[in-house]
Amino acid sequence: MPSENLSKQIAFIKEIDKLKYIQRKTRLLNSERQENDAEHSWHLAVMAIILAEHANHAVDMLKVVKMVLIHDLVEIDAGDTFIYDSQKNHSNSEAERIAAERIFGLLPEEQAAELIDIWEEFEAGKTEEAKFARSMDRLEPLLQNTSNNGGTWKEFDVPYEKVYEKKKVIKEGSDRLWNFAEQLLDESVEKGILKKDAPQ
Amino acid sequence: MPSENLSKQIAFIKEIDKLKYIQRKTRLLNSERQENDAEHSWHLAVMAIILAEHANHAVDMLKVVKMVLIHDLVEIDAGDTFIYDSQKNHSNSEAERIAAERIFGLLPEEQAAELIDIWEEFEAGKTEEAKFARSMDRLEPLLQNTSNNGGTWKEFDVPYEKVYEKKKVIKEGSDRLWNFAEQLLDESVEKGILKKDAPQ
Repeated sequence: MPSENLSKQIAFIKEIDKLKYIQRKTRLLNSERQENDAEHSWHLAVMAIILAEHANHAVDMLKVVKMVLIHDLVEIDAGDTFIYDSQKNHSNSEAERIAAERIFGLLPEEQAAELIDIWEEFEAGKTEEAKFARSMDRLEPLLQNTSNNGGTWKEFDVPYEKVYEKKKVIKEGSDRLWNFAEQLLDESVEKGILKKDAPQ
Repeated sequence: MPSENLSKQIAFIKEIDKLKYIQRKTRLLNSERQENDAEHSWHLAVMAIILAEHANHAVDMLKVVKMVLIHDLVEIDAGDTFIYDSQKNHSNSEAERIAAERIFGLLPEEQAAELIDIWEEFEAGKTEEAKFARSMDRLEPLLQNTSNNGGTWKEFDVPYEKVYEKKKVIKEGSDRLWNFAEQLLDESVEKGILKKDAPQ
């Protein structure tokens, strides 16, 4: 018989398989195919490792990687919230908190508490690790949308100003990546795949 | 303009998006849908973090996570080799080595060298980190096949003996996980979803 800890861990490992079915709005690079949350989380983890040298401050990389690997697990219950959805508040909704309790709660108590803390730290975005992790989360869809002729910006008519507002979170994690992101945004406006709001 | 390092890193980050299209033979838990390599790599990374306490020896967890996140990138060029394919040798084929040079070679030189080293360390399976990472890679499809009424074992007529031979790699990373895996294999034989070779 597996130990009680191992039984709980295996139950959690099986449960999170469901992340592979949670569809995001954004599509893969140069593609029509929507990305799922597991693919997204994998990509952010590799990005964080590769882009570490650009972080504004030294970060505990294992913690950053844990954050991005688990940051969307709550969406198994709460569903994906589109970042430009003006009706729903993206961050840390009541539904997401309940989901965190249920999903991480499958784990042994100490481990559940640790992962809930890490998830909350990511959501709060105050520590250097959370700032860098969140800059990865904002950068990936920027690469996707620019490769897809505007992608979700065009599909959902999101203006430059709103995109800029969401993307500037990148600066908190990395000034250098923010410079790069701003350049991509400017180029997108020039190409007409991202539109500025009409002047009042 | 982004720095030369950043330009190379972004090229790599875009290239590895292709991992999301590499289909494995194994299917998601209780599902008909085949898993792709990005989802698989994500799942192994979370498993490694969650199951760390069961490793036979203390491991550098960031290194283990890097290994599982990048272990299948060579399949972007070389394709997925089914573990029970008797024609092709799974590990470290010439095609995979060429793929590693090309894909990791997109990165700045030092980073490319570091990741090729980590990939080779995983393939060689000699260090404690590689042993634990490889035990994750063997354990995940075991959970999948047992949830899918035999899965690829049944689909491709793979006998118990051959499965056992491949799975015992788990023991090198974790005796405890191997005990659990053996139990799953025994149960699979009892249920008739994994068949022992007929005696000669």
